[in-house]
Amino acid sequence: MTDTRDYDALLHQVHQAVLPEIGRGTVANYIPELADVPPDQFGMAVVTLDGKVHTVGHAQTRFSIQSISKLFALVLAFQRQGDALWERVGREPSGTPFNSLVQLESESGKPRNPFINAGALVITDMLCTNFAVPENAVVEFARQLCDSKEIHYDRRVARSERGTSDRNAAMAHFMKNFGNLRNPVDQVLDAYCKHCAIEMSCVELARAVAFLANRGVNPWNGEQVLSASAAKRLSALMLTCGTYDAAGDFAFRVGLPAKSGVGGGIVALVPGECGVCVWSPALEHSGNSHAGLLALELFTTLSGRSIF
Amino acid sequence: MTDTRDYDALLHQVHQAVLPEIGRGTVANYIPELADVPPDQFGMAVVTLDGKVHTVGHAQTRFSIQSISKLFALVLAFQRQGDALWERVGREPSGTPFNSLVQLESESGKPRNPFINAGALVITDMLCTNFAVPENAVVEFARQLCDSKEIHYDRRVARSERGTSDRNAAMAHFMKNFGNLRNPVDQVLDAYCKHCAIEMSCVELARAVAFLANRGVNPWNGEQVLSASAAKRLSALMLTCGTYDAAGDFAFRVGLPAKSGVGGGIVALVPGECGVCVWSPALEHSGNSHAGLLALELFTTLSGRSIF
Amino acid sequence: MTDTRDYDALLHQVHQAVLPEIGRGTVANYIPELADVPPDQFGMAVVTLDGKVHTVGHAQTRFSIQSISKLFALVLAFQRQGDALWERVGREPSGTPFNSLVQLESESGKPRNPFINAGALVITDMLCTNFAVPENAVVEFARQLCDSKEIHYDRRVARSERGTSDRNAAMAHFMKNFGNLRNPVDQVLDAYCKHCAIEMSCVELARAVAFLANRGVNPWNGEQVLSASAAKRLSALMLTCGTYDAAGDFAFRVGLPAKSGVGGGIVALVPGECGVCVWSPALEHSGNSHAGLLALELFTTLSGRSIF
Amino acid sequence: MTDTRDYDALLHQVHQAVLPEIGRGTVANYIPELADVPPDQFGMAVVTLDGKVHTVGHAQTRFSIQSISKLFALVLAFQRQGDALWERVGREPSGTPFNSLVQLESESGKPRNPFINAGALVITDMLCTNFAVPENAVVEFARQLCDSKEIHYDRRVARSERGTSDRNAAMAHFMKNFGNLRNPVDQVLDAYCKHCAIEMSCVELARAVAFLANRGVNPWNGEQVLSASAAKRLSALMLTCGTYDAAGDFAFRVGLPAKSGVGGGIVALVPGECGVCVWSPALEHSGNSHAGLLALELFTTLSGRSIF
Repeated sequence: MTDTRDYDALLHQVHQAVLPEIGRGTVANYIPELADVPPDQFGMAVVTLDGKVHTVGHAQTRFSIQSISKLFALVLAFQRQGDALWERVGREPSGTPFNSLVQLESESGKPRNPFINAGALVITDMLCTNFAVPENAVVEFARQLCDSKEIHYDRRVARSERGTSDRNAAMAHFMKNFGNLRNPVDQVLDAYCKHCAIEMSCVELARAVAFLANRGVNPWNGEQVLSASAAKRLSALMLTCGTYDAAGDFAFRVGLPAKSGVGGGIVALVPGECGVCVWSPALEHSGNSHAGLLALELFTTLSGRSIF
Repeated sequence: MTDTRDYDALLHQVHQAVLPEIGRGTVANYIPELADVPPDQFGMAVVTLDGKVHTVGHAQTRFSIQSISKLFALVLAFQRQGDALWERVGREPSGTPFNSLVQLESESGKPRNPFINAGALVITDMLCTNFAVPENAVVEFARQLCDSKEIHYDRRVARSERGTSDRNAAMAHFMKNFGNLRNPVDQVLDAYCKHCAIEMSCVELARAVAFLANRGVNPWNGEQVLSASAAKRLSALMLTCGTYDAAGDFAFRVGLPAKSGVGGGIVALVPGECGVCVWSPALEHSGNSHAGLLALELFTTLSGRSIF
Repeated sequence: MTDTRDYDALLHQVHQAVLPEIGRGTVANYIPELADVPPDQFGMAVVTLDGKVHTVGHAQTRFSIQSISKLFALVLAFQRQGDALWERVGREPSGTPFNSLVQLESESGKPRNPFINAGALVITDMLCTNFAVPENAVVEFARQLCDSKEIHYDRRVARSERGTSDRNAAMAHFMKNFGNLRNPVDQVLDAYCKHCAIEMSCVELARAVAFLANRGVNPWNGEQVLSASAAKRLSALMLTCGTYDAAGDFAFRVGLPAKSGVGGGIVALVPGECGVCVWSPALEHSGNSHAGLLALELFTTLSGRSIF
Repeated sequence: MTDTRDYDALLHQVHQAVLPEIGRGTVANYIPELADVPPDQFGMAVVTLDGKVHTVGHAQTRFSIQSISKLFALVLAFQRQGDALWERVGREPSGTPFNSLVQLESESGKPRNPFINAGALVITDMLCTNFAVPENAVVEFARQLCDSKEIHYDRRVARSERGTSDRNAAMAHFMKNFGNLRNPVDQVLDAYCKHCAIEMSCVELARAVAFLANRGVNPWNGEQVLSASAAKRLSALMLTCGTYDAAGDFAFRVGLPAKSGVGGGIVALVPGECGVCVWSPALEHSGNSHAGLLALELFTTLSGRSIF
């Protein structure tokens, strides 16, 4: 498993194995734009730190990254706020579904971590304070990370999402009630729905997370995005909190830091080696891509590339 | 950081750095035997897979391993039950303190993971089914893992613990009510309190967890304790669930699979490299050793030995 | 509705109206002795303060009073402890099912009221402190209240109940953990299961609660059981907490202080006028007698005897 | 206690007894208009069904009725919706503070009862559907009930309240997410804050609730506001749910159907006899008037006018 041709063979093998599972599960259906995505698609990309790209399936197809944008938002906010960020958001797995209000109530409006919706709203609130047009800041940041100018968010998706965001509005108002939201709820929700509507392909996303596998340095332009220590720490956070209420199971089965989205994408990384992204729109019950999860499990089993 | 002398220097450096913190926090005080342990002790040991032992401080002093025994109990039960074990215990972080009943109530008596008390009681119940004298089975297993005949449990500690186990009794009866306990509650609690009262030193514990860093093979006798895959998976579980309600923070700061106990011990492992154990009796608010946690954080920061 | 013949006519009318509903619902089935009771039985009794007895159906058949015994236990404990009792048990509706542990956890082991199981266990613990054989004290007290020597508890029912009391054991250990249980858990559970197994008929129960309608004075021997004020207050508690998690609905529909049991009995009272008891074994989802609830609702609608 | 002069003497006696307690507690301080009300005020009024008015203290001073308006809103909605109303709001005590979201989450957005904030928001949503200007409908209804044209709501109070309504907004969005709110959240919150800002005096409020003591008939114009049965049932709901999380304690101590507001007012009624209102701005920890609660407790103790 040391020369690059292996990844091509490995991705092919993974693809073949998960073929019967592609399309199983349920496509996110709370907005028409996501509901209409054909479920029988599958793509996967591995981008090594030297820039080699390995793909299988629809790895160039752009999809709605949804919650994966929480990762970009978090890194961007962390660049500005540093560890002060943790005064307003925790670092513990939530133990409850990603959109629960119960924990907020018992913990005085401080979300458990930045990857549950409540936490991502607080992070977005920080971006609203730091940037005039926060969604554009996230888009621009994603562009730099994946070295492509072609990243945009889909205005229709953002608008649809905004129209069905009562639960997020409930959480935002609730946190504002506790003093943990500084900007107007409407403004935070607007920015949040827009950065969740960013569209990227597997290749672009695998490129974009490579800096986390590279001690915080963007391999495409040499910039230090985060310190090596911070990159490791955010990777740890992805492992414990990145896949909704299934993070423990994901760590158990896959063993890689990862972040998933209800658009069916999952990004992951092998420290020191590569960024990975898999996409398949049909979700299992926790909101993670069903075929994507299986593909990543196979990826680590076959390659021995777990971090453990 | 590749030759073994480095570990000696590293442990010395860690020890010096945490000296002012040793004794800060609170020694577990719910039973006299733990309350009477002098808080100003500190030991740390690293045992590499080739058997070299590096120590600092009271690394040969035996202490009550308490919840670290849950790890041995889990591996022993997993050897007998395999993945069927997960039908009765989950693999997710709990999101609530380690001895909470709330989650049991909302999840029909299935504990979130085998490292919270409720989960360890179910694991112990399995051992009660599989072994005539389950506590002896755990002791014997620990002996094999650390290659020492001298491991015992402290009967006075077990008896004291048994006398203050109303909360564990509550959980056990509650799970029995849901059908998730097969043996009499008293028998399960007896075995549980006894294997928690096992006494081991940092050196013995670092030796005992080395098999998890060695693809499941006991380095001291060559036996395959777990499959390589199972060893990785249990390591992942330690990372996400091994340090009570602070697992997310622990992963963030330390970045190693670990298991802690209220006796002040924490075991950890660097995959492919070594077993580690630190001990200092005074605990921070989550029930983990205060100085031990800092020492492990320094250990990974200084050595770059995080898994991320 | 002022002469006594009216009650006979009224009971007849109620009986006719609920006939099609008798047997609907589910007989308590967690112990064989209750599961085997034929569901198609119905009895009702009204005993006015001057001692006149009005009945319909199986009003002389004895049945397992179950949670109705919590009322006798409470009055007996209150006689000894007075208002100090409320330091260990609250007076608020629980808002959660009668056997929930969640509220105990968030409220430090103090049960919400004496009519949920946890509260009745604390009351029974008080009786264990005050009486050598607490179940006999409850039996004797029930005898005095209904003016009959023939009251006993059924040892087989008590034994069966004791064998399936894991949830109650969980609550008892949990409260003991919080310091809110003084006697050994086993002793409290024994006494509790025994006084719940008391057997009485509708006539006996209607007679037994008459003192609450009579300003605290036992109408059959003139003894002041409780002060007038305490009798009113306990009646209020029955209204807000006496019928499990359906107390609000019960107050809304029936409008009388009442206490129900899973044996299918419900006692109620019309202040200044009479004690009432209805019995029919099949229960609705909250654990109250289905036909009994309808009968009481009709009783107040037809008679205008609600307290509101 | 049968001639009307008794009420004058009784009110005087109550007033004297509570004098040292007036001003104890905390005036609601989340908006300046309430925070600025001098705490050392006290008024009480009894209006018998024949129209006789008995008062003591500041019984003619108008104050912000706040949550007492939930009672008027409920009756108004019930007139339109009848029992269909209960499909969207429960009738059980909440068992948790009046503004909790936890219960909403576990019960799919159906509030426990119409007197907690969430329930009152659903009721207000119904009024938004039934009336062009719902707050005016509530004002007009209050005018009819107390037979006065002079009732208004305070626009400044409404505006202030609207500016601090994040928690209510959270609940409204949350219920809308569950489909239990039909109108725009902003519209519902506007109407809610306005009808809570209605100002009335003790005399006016005691007159306004008299119809509930009069079998549903408005004593001042003979109109049937509610059926006799519905009036009794709403009275029962006031008893079990009308005083926030202290309803059980209130029923225990006072024993009358009542509804309180954070403006310091409490309305109550003695069925068949009179409407009652007490007002004193300083609140105990549950949000009920401290001196008002004591006054009502004395009122029933001294008069024997509890319903039990």
